[in-house]
Amino acid sequence: MKKILLAAIMLAAFVTSHAQNPWDKPATPSPEVHKDNTVTFRLKSPKAIRVQLSGDFLPPKKVKTKHAVRVIPGIVDLKEGKDGVWEYTTGAPLASEMYHYWFVVDGQRVLDPGNVYMLRDKDIVRNMFVIGGGCGDLYRTNKVPHGNVNHVWYDSPTLQMERRMIVYTPPGYETSRKKYPVLYLLHGMGNDETSWSTLGRAPYILDNLIAQGKAKPMIVVMTNGNAIQEAVPGESSIGFPVPTGYLEKTMEGSFETSFPDVMTYVEKHYRTINKKSARAIAGLSMGGFHTLHISKQYPDCFDYVGLFSSAISPLPKATSPIYQDMENKLKRQFASPPALYWIVIGNEDFLYKANVDYRKLLDKLGCKYTYTETGGGHFWQNWRLYLTDFYQKVF
Amino acid sequence: MKKILLAAIMLAAFVTSHAQNPWDKPATPSPEVHKDNTVTFRLKSPKAIRVQLSGDFLPPKKVKTKHAVRVIPGIVDLKEGKDGVWEYTTGAPLASEMYHYWFVVDGQRVLDPGNVYMLRDKDIVRNMFVIGGGCGDLYRTNKVPHGNVNHVWYDSPTLQMERRMIVYTPPGYETSRKKYPVLYLLHGMGNDETSWSTLGRAPYILDNLIAQGKAKPMIVVMTNGNAIQEAVPGESSIGFPVPTGYLEKTMEGSFETSFPDVMTYVEKHYRTINKKSARAIAGLSMGGFHTLHISKQYPDCFDYVGLFSSAISPLPKATSPIYQDMENKLKRQFASPPALYWIVIGNEDFLYKANVDYRKLLDKLGCKYTYTETGGGHFWQNWRLYLTDFYQKVF
Repeated sequence: MKKILLAAIMLAAFVTSHAQNPWDKPATPSPEVHKDNTVTFRLKSPKAIRVQLSGDFLPPKKVKTKHAVRVIPGIVDLKEGKDGVWEYTTGAPLASEMYHYWFVVDGQRVLDPGNVYMLRDKDIVRNMFVIGGGCGDLYRTNKVPHGNVNHVWYDSPTLQMERRMIVYTPPGYETSRKKYPVLYLLHGMGNDETSWSTLGRAPYILDNLIAQGKAKPMIVVMTNGNAIQEAVPGESSIGFPVPTGYLEKTMEGSFETSFPDVMTYVEKHYRTINKKSARAIAGLSMGGFHTLHISKQYPDCFDYVGLFSSAISPLPKATSPIYQDMENKLKRQFASPPALYWIVIGNEDFLYKANVDYRKLLDKLGCKYTYTETGGGHFWQNWRLYLTDFYQKVF
Repeated sequence: MKKILLAAIMLAAFVTSHAQNPWDKPATPSPEVHKDNTVTFRLKSPKAIRVQLSGDFLPPKKVKTKHAVRVIPGIVDLKEGKDGVWEYTTGAPLASEMYHYWFVVDGQRVLDPGNVYMLRDKDIVRNMFVIGGGCGDLYRTNKVPHGNVNHVWYDSPTLQMERRMIVYTPPGYETSRKKYPVLYLLHGMGNDETSWSTLGRAPYILDNLIAQGKAKPMIVVMTNGNAIQEAVPGESSIGFPVPTGYLEKTMEGSFETSFPDVMTYVEKHYRTINKKSARAIAGLSMGGFHTLHISKQYPDCFDYVGLFSSAISPLPKATSPIYQDMENKLKRQFASPPALYWIVIGNEDFLYKANVDYRKLLDKLGCKYTYTETGGGHFWQNWRLYLTDFYQKVF
């Protein structure tokens, strides 16, 4: 018996020696959030000529393109210090938020080797960190009861494939025997079924709001709105493609047409309250577009509708019946008006004008909606806030 | 209505312009798997002096440390070509496998900006890719029925915390009304509840084996064996710490003592067959150690036991009752012997000798086990193969 104690000692040796591989060694600590919420970023790169940092906490730049003014994250230079460690500390404390950043070393994008926390947005992976004390506290796990997050495969006869979605069930679901209302939460172009649960922090926000008594326990169904995909890149039978911000068969009616497949699965497999007053649907950008067209196509389904920074009109080439006869379908939907039809957008959003025009159309048709205008543009900081509000407005 | 068609055009413009930010632009394609399964890696880094590649497909190096010989991945130089794009193509086709790699630019570890597929192992994130045609085909999603993967929070009164585990339910679970056998699958030191489902490919392998008729449908419960953690770093109430390969309260009895909390939850919330012949437990390294000590502590629980590259003996300081009276407990466990007690290890594993000694002890006590010796050492390539075998041996 004594001999085999050696195993434990060898195991300890293994753990210690694990740091001795020069390309394994712990990276320079980064980012370091100081007590006053200023943040220091560090990258060891002794031979670099220029090291920069870009992130959504830096003052954004506006870039005029042929068709639109585009807001891109700012960029700053790091200063080289001892041992080739480059450093930058934010000039002011950062407001509570979940932030994203990356380094640019001699013009090339580089992830922070000191920070294992990364999220993919469309085709790009970025590092992330959270500043607490405000909305950032909603975007992380706290000592509150947690809902479960299930990666579920469902059959879509309409799209003729098995497809994946993510379903959040609220704390206590497993033992309560109760039935629950359902929010269908739809992503934007280039996103997928994982985006609301990672970048959008949907499960974290709801855990925290339920614990604070500010939102009702509900089931949240996060679908994949790209009709060509079974699932997020890397989790489908096409393997590991380079993700793209643009896919075929989006915004041409296929996803909206297949939406009853999603609802059929959810209402069969979960303890749902199957009536209009217990169903909500919301989405961002393309997901807002899907929300608009699904909710008017199935006018008796949803009592709560949320258009977040929403695209409005189908592309000229989209000839799906889903998009036909829009005015009459809206009239039909609003004949028994939803309890809430919420349009929310930032005043710098490139879809702002489209939403002004859509509200004019709704006014013309006598359709009653609620409108909220925020600052900012077409980004996740806004969408997380919109979702936080929407969670508190429904059911 | 025509006016708001503009929104769609602007959306298209947005998507197009998305690529115009110089630090957003698509990276150089990498890795490129050629038809003959040679692979080219590329990194654009015009100002770099030296660019290297390290990965588990390169001939490993042996490094002698004070206590053990350690096997580390090999490293090769890339060659600079046009436009500052560095390139390396493997000399020979790669065997079917899931591989991990990273670049080293002027001595600093850099992830491949051309590849969004990354996995964290302990404190380090690496890029990944899969070569098909053999076992690699088991490690990816194919056009077969899929099980669901649920991130579940359970109450552990023993550890006095809400803790997270990952539960795989097999295809058809939701509608079959059947009861299923359960495999408890335990991770190694520095890993967590996510490791078997990501690095270990446990859900993918089982989906594929069930589809091939080679494994029985079963529930797989992947716990967090670090008694100090609620969940994987980034998903617990301590926020976003720098992950470490070593944590307190591992291999000192706390996790093993709390294991009935896991089983209580699983057998209450899932349709499980609650008898010895329908329960399996297996783990790698520290998880093998947990498996050994849990299975002998609860001798009537598990009919299938798998020790993969297992640590054997408690640390000298570990005084938990779990570790007391080992020989008698083994005798008691083998009095009604498990249907399978499988010890498997690579002949280059640093725990090899400990396993030789453990087998001697089992022989001395007259405990009947099955032993398999493979090539290689203490790494995921082996553990995925061991799991693939174990899935086919149980139930």
